[in-house]
Amino acid sequence: MGQAGAQTVTKWVYAFGGGSADGDAGMRDLLGGKGANLAEMSALGLPVPPGFTLSTEVCTAYYDNDRAYPDGLDQQVADALKELEAKSDKKFGDPANPLLVSVRSGARASMPGMMDTVLNLGLNDETAEGLANLSGDRRFALDSYRRFIQMFSDVVLGVKHEHLEALMEDYKEENDLVADTDLSADDWAEIINLYKAEVRKRLGRDFPTDPNEQLWAAISAVFKSWMNDRAITYRNLHDIPAEWGTAVNVQAMVFGNMGEDSATGVAFTRNPSTGERKLYGEFLINAQGEDVVAGIRTPQSLTKEAREERKDNSPSLEEAMPETYKELLAVFDQLERHYRDMQDIEFTVEKSRLWMLQTRNGKRTAKAAFKIAVDMAREELISQDEAVLRVDPGQLDQLLHPTLDPDGPRDLLSKGLPASPGAAVGEVVFSSEDAQKISREGRPVILVRPVTTPEDIHGMHVSQAIVTSQGGMTSHAAVVARGMGTPCVCGAGDIRIDVKAGVFKAAGREVKAGEIITVDGATGEVFLGEVAMIEPELTGDFAILMAWADEARRLGVRANAETPSDVRTAKSFGAEGIGLCRTEHMFFDAERISKMREMILSKDEAGRRAALDKLLPFQRADFEEIFTIMEDRPCTIRLLDPPLHEFLPHTEEDVAEVAEATGLPRDALMQRASELHEENPMLGHRGCRLAITYPEIYEMQARAIFEAQAAVQKATGVMPLVEIMIPLVGFASELALLRSKIDAVAAALSKETGFSPEYLVGTMIELPRAAVRADEIATHADFFSFGTNDLTQTTLGLSRDDSARFMSAYVDGGLIERDPFQTLDKSGVGDLIRLAAARGRTVKSGLKLGICGEHGGDPSSVDFCDEVGLDYVSCSPYRLPIARLSAAQASLRARK
Amino acid sequence: MGQAGAQTVTKWVYAFGGGSADGDAGMRDLLGGKGANLAEMSALGLPVPPGFTLSTEVCTAYYDNDRAYPDGLDQQVADALKELEAKSDKKFGDPANPLLVSVRSGARASMPGMMDTVLNLGLNDETAEGLANLSGDRRFALDSYRRFIQMFSDVVLGVKHEHLEALMEDYKEENDLVADTDLSADDWAEIINLYKAEVRKRLGRDFPTDPNEQLWAAISAVFKSWMNDRAITYRNLHDIPAEWGTAVNVQAMVFGNMGEDSATGVAFTRNPSTGERKLYGEFLINAQGEDVVAGIRTPQSLTKEAREERKDNSPSLEEAMPETYKELLAVFDQLERHYRDMQDIEFTVEKSRLWMLQTRNGKRTAKAAFKIAVDMAREELISQDEAVLRVDPGQLDQLLHPTLDPDGPRDLLSKGLPASPGAAVGEVVFSSEDAQKISREGRPVILVRPVTTPEDIHGMHVSQAIVTSQGGMTSHAAVVARGMGTPCVCGAGDIRIDVKAGVFKAAGREVKAGEIITVDGATGEVFLGEVAMIEPELTGDFAILMAWADEARRLGVRANAETPSDVRTAKSFGAEGIGLCRTEHMFFDAERISKMREMILSKDEAGRRAALDKLLPFQRADFEEIFTIMEDRPCTIRLLDPPLHEFLPHTEEDVAEVAEATGLPRDALMQRASELHEENPMLGHRGCRLAITYPEIYEMQARAIFEAQAAVQKATGVMPLVEIMIPLVGFASELALLRSKIDAVAAALSKETGFSPEYLVGTMIELPRAAVRADEIATHADFFSFGTNDLTQTTLGLSRDDSARFMSAYVDGGLIERDPFQTLDKSGVGDLIRLAAARGRTVKSGLKLGICGEHGGDPSSVDFCDEVGLDYVSCSPYRLPIARLSAAQASLRARK
Repeated sequence: MGQAGAQTVTKWVYAFGGGSADGDAGMRDLLGGKGANLAEMSALGLPVPPGFTLSTEVCTAYYDNDRAYPDGLDQQVADALKELEAKSDKKFGDPANPLLVSVRSGARASMPGMMDTVLNLGLNDETAEGLANLSGDRRFALDSYRRFIQMFSDVVLGVKHEHLEALMEDYKEENDLVADTDLSADDWAEIINLYKAEVRKRLGRDFPTDPNEQLWAAISAVFKSWMNDRAITYRNLHDIPAEWGTAVNVQAMVFGNMGEDSATGVAFTRNPSTGERKLYGEFLINAQGEDVVAGIRTPQSLTKEAREERKDNSPSLEEAMPETYKELLAVFDQLERHYRDMQDIEFTVEKSRLWMLQTRNGKRTAKAAFKIAVDMAREELISQDEAVLRVDPGQLDQLLHPTLDPDGPRDLLSKGLPASPGAAVGEVVFSSEDAQKISREGRPVILVRPVTTPEDIHGMHVSQAIVTSQGGMTSHAAVVARGMGTPCVCGAGDIRIDVKAGVFKAAGREVKAGEIITVDGATGEVFLGEVAMIEPELTGDFAILMAWADEARRLGVRANAETPSDVRTAKSFGAEGIGLCRTEHMFFDAERISKMREMILSKDEAGRRAALDKLLPFQRADFEEIFTIMEDRPCTIRLLDPPLHEFLPHTEEDVAEVAEATGLPRDALMQRASELHEENPMLGHRGCRLAITYPEIYEMQARAIFEAQAAVQKATGVMPLVEIMIPLVGFASELALLRSKIDAVAAALSKETGFSPEYLVGTMIELPRAAVRADEIATHADFFSFGTNDLTQTTLGLSRDDSARFMSAYVDGGLIERDPFQTLDKSGVGDLIRLAAARGRTVKSGLKLGICGEHGGDPSSVDFCDEVGLDYVSCSPYRLPIARLSAAQASLRARK
Repeated sequence: MGQAGAQTVTKWVYAFGGGSADGDAGMRDLLGGKGANLAEMSALGLPVPPGFTLSTEVCTAYYDNDRAYPDGLDQQVADALKELEAKSDKKFGDPANPLLVSVRSGARASMPGMMDTVLNLGLNDETAEGLANLSGDRRFALDSYRRFIQMFSDVVLGVKHEHLEALMEDYKEENDLVADTDLSADDWAEIINLYKAEVRKRLGRDFPTDPNEQLWAAISAVFKSWMNDRAITYRNLHDIPAEWGTAVNVQAMVFGNMGEDSATGVAFTRNPSTGERKLYGEFLINAQGEDVVAGIRTPQSLTKEAREERKDNSPSLEEAMPETYKELLAVFDQLERHYRDMQDIEFTVEKSRLWMLQTRNGKRTAKAAFKIAVDMAREELISQDEAVLRVDPGQLDQLLHPTLDPDGPRDLLSKGLPASPGAAVGEVVFSSEDAQKISREGRPVILVRPVTTPEDIHGMHVSQAIVTSQGGMTSHAAVVARGMGTPCVCGAGDIRIDVKAGVFKAAGREVKAGEIITVDGATGEVFLGEVAMIEPELTGDFAILMAWADEARRLGVRANAETPSDVRTAKSFGAEGIGLCRTEHMFFDAERISKMREMILSKDEAGRRAALDKLLPFQRADFEEIFTIMEDRPCTIRLLDPPLHEFLPHTEEDVAEVAEATGLPRDALMQRASELHEENPMLGHRGCRLAITYPEIYEMQARAIFEAQAAVQKATGVMPLVEIMIPLVGFASELALLRSKIDAVAAALSKETGFSPEYLVGTMIELPRAAVRADEIATHADFFSFGTNDLTQTTLGLSRDDSARFMSAYVDGGLIERDPFQTLDKSGVGDLIRLAAARGRTVKSGLKLGICGEHGGDPSSVDFCDEVGLDYVSCSPYRLPIARLSAAQASLRARK
């Protein structure tokens, strides 16, 4: 594989930039992800800063050959460097016009643990002065130089950055300087000398000044980092073969801070908040890219229209650099046509010359995603099916939840930038740690920070909304929040945050951690207290795209619901049936639970039957209501599932209260609760096991269902489609026995009243044993519904209630990709589902299969359900549109 | 299948008895189990009471033909009846010499729920008088007649026995009679009239007096019962096809109570307690079979020798009926030669004529089983391999536990018959309910009863020993106890039991329920309090047969042990290695647990490491001791498994105590315990999950293991074979990460000391996910050990701690065959093991596979382990011989 022979010359180095490239996006295996993308942009003729890629084959050859480079590599790099100098009009190591480069690793798959980036390589005392002259900013040049020494020393020379940073801190202290911005050019020059002395002391040799020596040292550092411990561990965990190797990208640096004819900016080809087809972005004159993103200087608009809307006085790019603006517009058009999607772009203008640093599909809000998809389909840029595939179902959540009621009373605290739409209410927290802690207790939180950094990601994930006092629409907080679909207000400058004191001041008030605020990300407003919400309207682009999705999907979509209000919501959100009606939820109402307790305290079957007789009318009425709403759509009713102790009070106080309220004897309550106590209730006396010991419970429920069916059929003329579901079956014998008892109830009713109930009897598959013995179980079942919540708990031996405390160590450590309670563990739990579906259908080819765990509303899990041939998914009502869209995408992908 | 065509005549009826038979033991499908066995005995020329069998094809034809009998059946039954009359020298319905018959169902598989038996069919007013004349016992004749009416009315006519029994109770009350034995012949005559009147009243017709009508009604009742609800449910639960049908057996009754030349008895061809080759049994002159078994009259010995040993004055059968005795000896010889096993026989002598009622392989004690198997192999009756197959490994338990120390002080209460050997200590209980209740709480019990009946089986199962004040060596208690291997003393006549008061009196003392007694079933002695025990000696026949077994088996056998004493016991019981050394058991010692708690209370890694450093020397010393004992046999060491809260006190009292004792702060203890509380600890933060969050724990353990290995290697020159086992792995990534950490410890030690540890790293397979993803996991594992305790809990979603309260409903209701925690659930859990073994070996063909759940000592589970190709089983030390024998039997069966 690419070993250089004596005769054939292997190509090790691939150039890009200057309107052409040796590679393209398809050469990912050879050039790595980053190299292939740079080649692709160059090949499009875009003004990409030129450079070259050392292929992954170099890495492989290096390790195959006992860490020696293949013959000819030297020369190819030298040639590529020469070409790069020509394309960039600069010279490597030339103080008059120095070419500086970045060196980056780039494997096939993005992989942490490896050496990442060295910037500004090529700087030394002479070229730094050259950069100072060219930029007219000696401080910038020396700051860049000291940063380069720090970075290079750390990742290439192995002198840990702490050592150099300590020197800088000492220097600052000695000279009464606080922030980095307090340091002058001369200060940086001093520090550079201190750095160089320290490197000499630690390594016994000088910091390399020869750019070529710097370049080869950096290249070698990348290749060596492929075999460092962290990278090896990561590859082991993710089954990435060591033979893949990494590529190395060397690219010319360009600078947006070379004077008033230089600039840097970011742009979206369409509005990422609303989806409107309008250029959207920001830039800064004479600035570096990080200045825009960091949110320290307030950036200017790209277009005159946007500037006027924002009532901003600083000129827009359209006004300040009309030629560059036109060039940029042309590039944007080209990019949208090429990538056929909205682009998120970084660009730099160096001395009036435009450079494209990066383009990628832009993140957008759900609303924007619908608009862009529908618009692009209408523009015939993409097909209707592609439009359906363009919206990320995971994002839909934000569209499907309430927004602020415009008529609700409100108490404005502050107004910032509308960085990510949506409304939310929650407790104020000032740190990501508090956000995680309080949200784990089930309380909604709103993270309030001066700015956010990548360290805040976990806290942002669990927050209902994010508020920052600094930063713009493309600040870290804004970009990340839009991606997550979390409401966000940025740059709310009149909010003064004292993180340490746990308080912020705004509009003359003090708001403490723990107080409730409301955030409207669509307007940028922050209110004190809770503001009323209204239901979302699901019309317009949303309705159009969902209709296209419904045309495309194969999977049916049902809802998990039992209250009439949820059942109605489910119907309005497109539920084609009820997939899981949890009957125990009907027993917790005050009047009912006392009868339930009476049943549990009964000493014998007769006593239990008497109590159940009192519960029957309630259940029957519930079912009548559900059947009436759902009309001719099927309703899957799960019989009693939780252990009986869930219905009893447990603490002495609760027992006393219940005894008082119900007249049930206190001692009996206490004793029964203690009798029923279980070490592992998840694996205890519940589900169908209750009915094996107390068959009268399911008999009552079956009767209530059948009597309701009779009543609704009589009242409406529509025969309700009833599917009775037995939970926690592990043995075919359980289902056989309970089915016969349900049949007996139906037969008795038919004898008594002449009404013959029509129904299916099926089972949850939620135990590994049920999955394995699905063939036997299928002989007694009309349908299976995979209860993936419990199936995940049992297959993984993982309690949902108890796993939070160590699950983050698994996700953060890369041991698992995603929380298996949110996204189905396809290779573990999924394998059992696949097995059960196959074994069940071996016995009954037409066996109806569904899923009713919460995974039924998770896009990647729905995809899996489609793949293994389930008939429907069932999820909570608010997630129905997610399920519908996910199902459509699964069908479309499967067709490809 | 056997449908009668017009031309061919189908044989529906098969005769047996009188020295020949139409069928044999191989015709089980056609004749049912019972019919086939009767045919076999007849064909051997044994004096079996003659009869005939209506084949299962009659049943099938009956149902195929809309409940009508096939043509020709009438005639075939009439012919068979004639033949029967001839063979028995009696006539059906003839008052002078009436032939009475029994009618019994008999399907292929024994099946409850069906009509079982009608005895004495053929009785009416006239034949009853005939029987009275013939037997010279009118009371017996009329008692038999009223029993027949009761039984026939109940199971054939559908008049529930309660109705007739109520009449009898009323009669007794009116006439001041208490026990059935108080009733005279005339009383029975009165009651018979009452019965007949009641039947007439309820059915509107007379009780049938025509023997032929009685016969056909009984036959029809058997065939109809094949389709009753209970039978259908049973078949559904056990996958028995309805097409199998049942047979009906009609057999002549014989009577052992026809005068002094009649008798009835039971016998074993060898001694079932000791295995000695001596005739063993009891009989009664002029009695019915049930009189012997019921233990009401004290039976006589069969041989003169036995009578003399028992110092009994009543003559033996050898003395009383020398001709019959000789005949019986010849039959016994023939039976042992034919069945090649010790036989358990029921016989009756009717007017000097010997009839064999039943023969079957006799139940025996474990000791007898070894002796009989070894003797028979030496007699060349069976081969060495057959001998190995002859001992039930499940019985071995009784040989492997301690017996009474002859020098231990003791306080004798009573001496009865030594009905089943073995010694035991436990609390006195007087009912099976109490036995079950208290044993469920983990307390050993001894069941003390006047006699036992089949209703006591459950109580007997859970008791350590059984004591009865009545009954002989073949009483119910004695036979059942021997079969179970439970020590038993019968007929301890000087014990006076007052079940109601919960007390027994013996030797002038009163012993209450709950007091401790000791039973020696080998001597028949019962002692007050606990008597010291000594270890069993495993020599003689046991050692010979175990050596044969070890020659035969393929599976390796290891032990679950960690204390030096258990490890030594394991070695002496033949452990070829340690399969599970539970390191957490080493942390519970007082000195160690305080350090463990210190570790758990530490706020950071440094604190934990400091506490672990203190634990290390203890662990290292433990391992040194184990390695030294086990020499060159492999030791599998499982790293810490239980959740940390198991090491903390929980109640306020315990916390206070621990705080006092250890100086650890009380609040911190309380808070940490509450932080660590889990809803479902079984599915919580335990096993390898502990090491994902606190890697330093496993690092300490690995270091202790390696340092111990170095020390033992240096001291003894033998390199310990170390296998490190990671528990609760669900994801390959867990094993990959932890393996790398163990390797790092080994590398560090090697660098420090120059000693290079040698070890394997493997994992428990105890989660369904691990089984499913065994291929991925195997890439990082040198071995798998199936942890079937937890794998059963997770696969079945069944908590071992919580399932006791409903598991009996499952076993009793026939929903499952056996408690899955005792015998491996082969079709559920076993299917996952099979899958895991196959997937693991796809990746690594030589992957070592073992099992270390408690199933490793269960015979049927060991058989499964052999079948799926595991390399070894591991079990508790005392169960090692069971595992060795089971493994040998599995190999021998597999070879067939």
